[in-house]
Amino acid sequence: MTTGRQVVFHLTEAGRGERTIQNVAHLLDEWDDDGTIEVVANGDGIKALLLTGPYGDLLRGLAEAGVRFAICAHSARAQGFTREDFPRVVTVVPSGVGEIVKREAEGFAYIRP
Amino acid sequence: MTTGRQVVFHLTEAGRGERTIQNVAHLLDEWDDDGTIEVVANGDGIKALLLTGPYGDLLRGLAEAGVRFAICAHSARAQGFTREDFPRVVTVVPSGVGEIVKREAEGFAYIRP
Amino acid sequence: MTTGRQVVFHLTEAGRGERTIQNVAHLLDEWDDDGTIEVVANGDGIKALLLTGPYGDLLRGLAEAGVRFAICAHSARAQGFTREDFPRVVTVVPSGVGEIVKREAEGFAYIRP
Repeated sequence: MTTGRQVVFHLTEAGRGERTIQNVAHLLDEWDDDGTIEVVANGDGIKALLLTGPYGDLLRGLAEAGVRFAICAHSARAQGFTREDFPRVVTVVPSGVGEIVKREAEGFAYIRP
Repeated sequence: MTTGRQVVFHLTEAGRGERTIQNVAHLLDEWDDDGTIEVVANGDGIKALLLTGPYGDLLRGLAEAGVRFAICAHSARAQGFTREDFPRVVTVVPSGVGEIVKREAEGFAYIRP
Repeated sequence: MTTGRQVVFHLTEAGRGERTIQNVAHLLDEWDDDGTIEVVANGDGIKALLLTGPYGDLLRGLAEAGVRFAICAHSARAQGFTREDFPRVVTVVPSGVGEIVKREAEGFAYIRP
């Protein structure tokens, strides 16, 4: 991996899902699939990653290209969602903000689309 | 303090106050009170920290757990607020963005809830 | 340049243009023009930097003080804008998010006003 090509996208609203996915696709293209991209969703943002949401197939395709997707367990619980409500490529992390802080401490850039 | 457990939350809208406070509470819990958490509010976000706001007691409790709260002096002036309009646990900093840049340069992660 | 005085502002909505410009002006003032400030606009945010927008003269003044302005080529294309729609002080970068990741990897703080 080329140094400096690590980024965590923070998805906080379902309505920013499309933009976030476009951002990810542009970066994959620009980096020629060389780099580490993670999307961390919390709050209302997790709805953009639902199995029944509009991006199911897109998410699978991006995950195959190496993109990681994570949702906040607190946010899922608070909204009555369970693990089964999300595609298998989505990971449930104990806390969305904890995940983001960890990535930034590892040197990931932070972007909130 | 465990390395990598430093984060500055940027509160820009009063309506994101509740979410920010939840984020802080989750991190305190996950980190077992080990880490440095600062909330910097500017623009409309400073209203969430008003003495007459809904989070007075919560702010005091979080401050006792070590969380720092700062508001932007420019934003307070522009909205006609003075130091007395905020709880004692809130610090007034010359500029909210200056404070955030300083923290990030010190290695704090940045999160905008 | 004093260490730690590097910041990239992420402008995502035209409605946040005024706040972003105020933030930049406050930092220039606080830092006494010593530091590196870049504003990267993408999505709807690029509209705030249009030649016909409300900040034409302000942008020129800030650029003379050393502030850099960049817009995302993807976003410009998607909205039917060309290079000529923006003041000369604005640079068109291949991808707004690519530019932001690069700056953060160089040590710039990130702020989304």
